[in-house]
Amino acid sequence: MDHRSPAQQREVHFSPADRHGLYKAIFNRRDVRGQFKPDPIPEAVLSRILLAAHHAPSVGFMQPWDFVIVTDPEVKRRVHAGFLEAQAREMELFSGDRKELYRTLKLEGIMEAPVNICVTCDRGRTGAIVLGRTNDMAMDLYSSVCAVQNLWLAARAEGLGVGWVSILHRDVLPGVLGIPEPVVPIAYLCMGYVTGFHERPELETARWLPRLPLDDLVHGNTWGNKDAPSCASLKEHLRQDMARARQGTIPDKAEE
Amino acid sequence: MDHRSPAQQREVHFSPADRHGLYKAIFNRRDVRGQFKPDPIPEAVLSRILLAAHHAPSVGFMQPWDFVIVTDPEVKRRVHAGFLEAQAREMELFSGDRKELYRTLKLEGIMEAPVNICVTCDRGRTGAIVLGRTNDMAMDLYSSVCAVQNLWLAARAEGLGVGWVSILHRDVLPGVLGIPEPVVPIAYLCMGYVTGFHERPELETARWLPRLPLDDLVHGNTWGNKDAPSCASLKEHLRQDMARARQGTIPDKAEE
Repeated sequence: MDHRSPAQQREVHFSPADRHGLYKAIFNRRDVRGQFKPDPIPEAVLSRILLAAHHAPSVGFMQPWDFVIVTDPEVKRRVHAGFLEAQAREMELFSGDRKELYRTLKLEGIMEAPVNICVTCDRGRTGAIVLGRTNDMAMDLYSSVCAVQNLWLAARAEGLGVGWVSILHRDVLPGVLGIPEPVVPIAYLCMGYVTGFHERPELETARWLPRLPLDDLVHGNTWGNKDAPSCASLKEHLRQDMARARQGTIPDKAEE
Repeated sequence: MDHRSPAQQREVHFSPADRHGLYKAIFNRRDVRGQFKPDPIPEAVLSRILLAAHHAPSVGFMQPWDFVIVTDPEVKRRVHAGFLEAQAREMELFSGDRKELYRTLKLEGIMEAPVNICVTCDRGRTGAIVLGRTNDMAMDLYSSVCAVQNLWLAARAEGLGVGWVSILHRDVLPGVLGIPEPVVPIAYLCMGYVTGFHERPELETARWLPRLPLDDLVHGNTWGNKDAPSCASLKEHLRQDMARARQGTIPDKAEE
């Protein structure tokens, strides 16, 4: 038993070093597809990463996630076969230069990564009526996505690369992994130690799409109100922080 | 211009202190509804938090998010009116003790929090065909959710509380904030400094639902394979880490 009152609030102060650790993980996280090493992931490390995922927010404290830990090469091979089919179909949706560029992209590391993890959402976990989900039935899916992001950041801080494979027909994972309704796959993740992390997202480097200017994505009080006087000074901060981030500087450092 | 090769990989080492900062944010993040103070959020702080959100992963590097920063009390009031309607409807879906418990819960801090942020997803941002979204059209929604989670963790590390208000009819935010199709609201967040953070999630403390045992949510290679020999030792780690987390100990500390 915990002897503290359950409703107790506690002071947990974040030092500049604590904050820096979080920002470092956020700004250095990458979607890894091609740099996986076969080195095994220690179970103590995998455990901390899953614990981080399990402490994501969830609608109505539903905790709808499960984690299927895939290490069997035959299971991976079947998922990979599904990827190859889906990739071939997706490529046909592009044309010309885009199609040629698509062809050159490495988009997954299923076979190379020592561990694959399927994060799911059990839509029936706590019954049909879920506090906070009755107006938006996607809220439980979003909870599992928050678990994915926690997992991804924790892995990065542990020196592990993670890549999210979304190029899979929706029937593949339920079929290969035997996931029953009403459970749905949210993310299929490849995880392992890496030879290195790319400095920038690979799709940015390949000029698939550019990083957007953040100050253009901020609206004051209502949509489209991008020149709101209330946001003018904030936007100047955003432009400066974006410029620092492009130089590889984590903005919180400016204050230390 | 950046003089480094864009494809360059760099060594970014995470010290134990860096890792600890990330885990501290993950394990101490709370959904805050009732402890907001009116103190303004410095723009330099808000800028760093939005920058963290903007560095979330996104499908096909689409970056589908926007941020509507709501500080106008009249706009908040209209959102809050929508909450009150939706809350009254949702409460009627429960009965008996659950309904009475629901009635006692504080579920939002819209008016008290100095800043509300609506995070959206522009489903048409980069055209109809998005790399990685052609098999699962929800992937762009999930990208915006990852931005929410980055924002939430960054806010926590900056000492700010955040609460996600999902008890709103789906027409409310597009109506009040003027959000046009094909943009959809993903999250309406209340943010501000707080008098304190609860030690545990409020719905856990109120006995709405318990924290689930993580080791029971881990499957080996295929769904339902919870007794897989390949996971036995991992599950022992998970049980130990869960026990430490219940005591308020961040598991990475055990190694230091």
